[in-house]
Amino acid sequence: MAEHRRGANLPSIGGFNRTVVLDAVRRSPEGLSRVELAGRTGLSAQTVSNVTRFLIEAGMIVESGTVVSGRGKPRTILRLEAASRYAVGVHVDPAIVTYVLLDLAGTVVAQSTTSTPSADDPAEVVRTIAGAVDALVTGARVDVDAVLGVGVASPGPIDAEAGVVLDPPFLPRWRDVPLRDALAGATGHPVLLEKDVTAAAVGEMFLAGESAARNFAFVYFGTGFGVGLVLDHEPVRGVGSNAGDAGHIMVDQGPLAGTPDGSGTRGEVGAAVAPDRLVQVAAARGLDLGPVSDAASVDRAWDVLAAAIAAGDEEACALAADTGRAMGNAAVLIVNLLDLDRVVFGGPFWSRIASAALPAARSAIVDSPLLVPKHPIAVEDTDRGADVAAVGAACLVLDAALSPRASTLLIRR
Amino acid sequence: MAEHRRGANLPSIGGFNRTVVLDAVRRSPEGLSRVELAGRTGLSAQTVSNVTRFLIEAGMIVESGTVVSGRGKPRTILRLEAASRYAVGVHVDPAIVTYVLLDLAGTVVAQSTTSTPSADDPAEVVRTIAGAVDALVTGARVDVDAVLGVGVASPGPIDAEAGVVLDPPFLPRWRDVPLRDALAGATGHPVLLEKDVTAAAVGEMFLAGESAARNFAFVYFGTGFGVGLVLDHEPVRGVGSNAGDAGHIMVDQGPLAGTPDGSGTRGEVGAAVAPDRLVQVAAARGLDLGPVSDAASVDRAWDVLAAAIAAGDEEACALAADTGRAMGNAAVLIVNLLDLDRVVFGGPFWSRIASAALPAARSAIVDSPLLVPKHPIAVEDTDRGADVAAVGAACLVLDAALSPRASTLLIRR
Repeated sequence: MAEHRRGANLPSIGGFNRTVVLDAVRRSPEGLSRVELAGRTGLSAQTVSNVTRFLIEAGMIVESGTVVSGRGKPRTILRLEAASRYAVGVHVDPAIVTYVLLDLAGTVVAQSTTSTPSADDPAEVVRTIAGAVDALVTGARVDVDAVLGVGVASPGPIDAEAGVVLDPPFLPRWRDVPLRDALAGATGHPVLLEKDVTAAAVGEMFLAGESAARNFAFVYFGTGFGVGLVLDHEPVRGVGSNAGDAGHIMVDQGPLAGTPDGSGTRGEVGAAVAPDRLVQVAAARGLDLGPVSDAASVDRAWDVLAAAIAAGDEEACALAADTGRAMGNAAVLIVNLLDLDRVVFGGPFWSRIASAALPAARSAIVDSPLLVPKHPIAVEDTDRGADVAAVGAACLVLDAALSPRASTLLIRR
Repeated sequence: MAEHRRGANLPSIGGFNRTVVLDAVRRSPEGLSRVELAGRTGLSAQTVSNVTRFLIEAGMIVESGTVVSGRGKPRTILRLEAASRYAVGVHVDPAIVTYVLLDLAGTVVAQSTTSTPSADDPAEVVRTIAGAVDALVTGARVDVDAVLGVGVASPGPIDAEAGVVLDPPFLPRWRDVPLRDALAGATGHPVLLEKDVTAAAVGEMFLAGESAARNFAFVYFGTGFGVGLVLDHEPVRGVGSNAGDAGHIMVDQGPLAGTPDGSGTRGEVGAAVAPDRLVQVAAARGLDLGPVSDAASVDRAWDVLAAAIAAGDEEACALAADTGRAMGNAAVLIVNLLDLDRVVFGGPFWSRIASAALPAARSAIVDSPLLVPKHPIAVEDTDRGADVAAVGAACLVLDAALSPRASTLLIRR
């Protein structure tokens, strides 16, 4: 519950200003002098001096060389101490659970995977994930006390308040798994649970450049199709924290229509681009991606598709382009509704078709006869790679701990 | 430009706390004691005492009786002084410009209309509107100095930064009309320009109850079809302030399909429910709403439709229901994307079909097989009536001047 319409809280200003200064240093890989920090944040020289002393003592920033600027005395440069704090990100997908360890700069310093445990026995799920988290941290030789927490990205729907994974259609047998609190108990770390598409968007928001991170749609192509949203630097979570469901948006499916189970040219985008369906579409077009039964076999088929695209196979590239175009056709409607200027594509199934799918998706958006905004729209691949949801999950922790939010200046209930 | 990532500003706290206290009093028609204000805002008794003294001296709140509570001494009740400040709202529509004067409590104390001037001569537009604004304020015998400003709601697209109405498809010959600054010059009041759907949403946000105003979609049915959005108490304006375009969302048109110019059952919702098209659909169904040529004739036809619905005409009620259903089918996709729990319908064309259209719209949303959220969704008519966009335009001024925003606690650039 946001502390809307509460009075302003004098004692919270110090903590807020620390997050402001840390954020400015974090987003400046070349470092910043105290004078530059004062200019950028609007804080007085005295406040910048106090805050930077605190952050240096906490080990989060370091003095790192000097620069001479004009005729004044040399200025000491402050940089982020990336190895001072860490966060773990966990992405639960139907076939695979991915684990990443991020340092304070957002760099992945360790990565691992396990196969996804069946949730017939929720305790087994928690044991598997907790064990993998501990092994990741230990294997990276990171001090446990430097780990700020664990973020978990799960397919929706989730009950964010209770920290429970409800009954995601793509996680059969997962039903009301109380992942957050059980995992917190098992690992000893604070745990945050978020829907996968929102986690991906938070990762983009936290790690992308300041201006690029302000307003965008993150079109997430995993086993499900969803759209994470960031508006005015804030992720859109919605009333029940399950925002991002975009699969029912009706689009012109183009060449994907009618084969093998479509009818008409218009259909729901989520069904049109479902990875298992696309493997069947490929087969109907004479492109054999291998037999498909469960989530793991779809994942393998997708690896075959990626290899075929890399080898320049025409059918493979055409399928990827058709897929990108259908997703772009859905994204246009969201760009219109929210007047966005940036659409980012990513996710485990996207990353394997991105090279052939992105140009088609971009054209479907920027050349669409339905596009309303008159300003340019940037359409890009995420820089976060295939593990974007896991990286985003870790960024949930970093963002919650480190990003300035004006709402923290209000008196808590 | 939000002052994101700037330090916190000590001197701004006083002004912020005044907006917090005024907002709490404003939203409590029965009034509040100072003790209740302290409890609600979290502010100390001393701060509440200082802030209320300031607001009483400014004439915005008044002491109004006492209540005895328990064994303590009687508490003085503070109420909003509604007649202390005013705002003017202007809604530019193709046929009619509507003007309202709102007091601080959001009550419409005066209303007028003019026919919409052609923008062949922008100076004539400004003269017409400025004259009507002056006449409204003078006629209501309101002190000009008590008018906080003028809000203007216009069909999009607008250039919010420049204060210019660009080239709305529903305002032929309006092209690059610099309405904001010209009107400010002509009236002497500060002027805010906003897209009509966003103005309607701001009105709802400002005037509805605290909890209802937090997250909702405002489905606006005027000459165009659009959806204004409020997420976490903030209107969604988008990068170019033209958010809210939802007309290209493809829906199952149901019985509206195929007649007279549709094809297939799926079509863009904006085209499906265009008022001039619906008059033709009515004619094809044997319901004569009169001849249609320009915007004014469509408006008259709609009055005939409203009368037929009021008289219980079956065809008229069915047409309204089909229209509501098509709009509900579009709204479901937005509810899914943003995980909303409230959809409000309004606008000049909506208000005349609301009684027959709302139940169909509600059912299309809450009973939809596509609906994702598991929590209840409230689907309601606006309480703001047919002039919702004009009322919302006035609320732009009140909201900007009076609503607490944590971002105002940050140091300005």
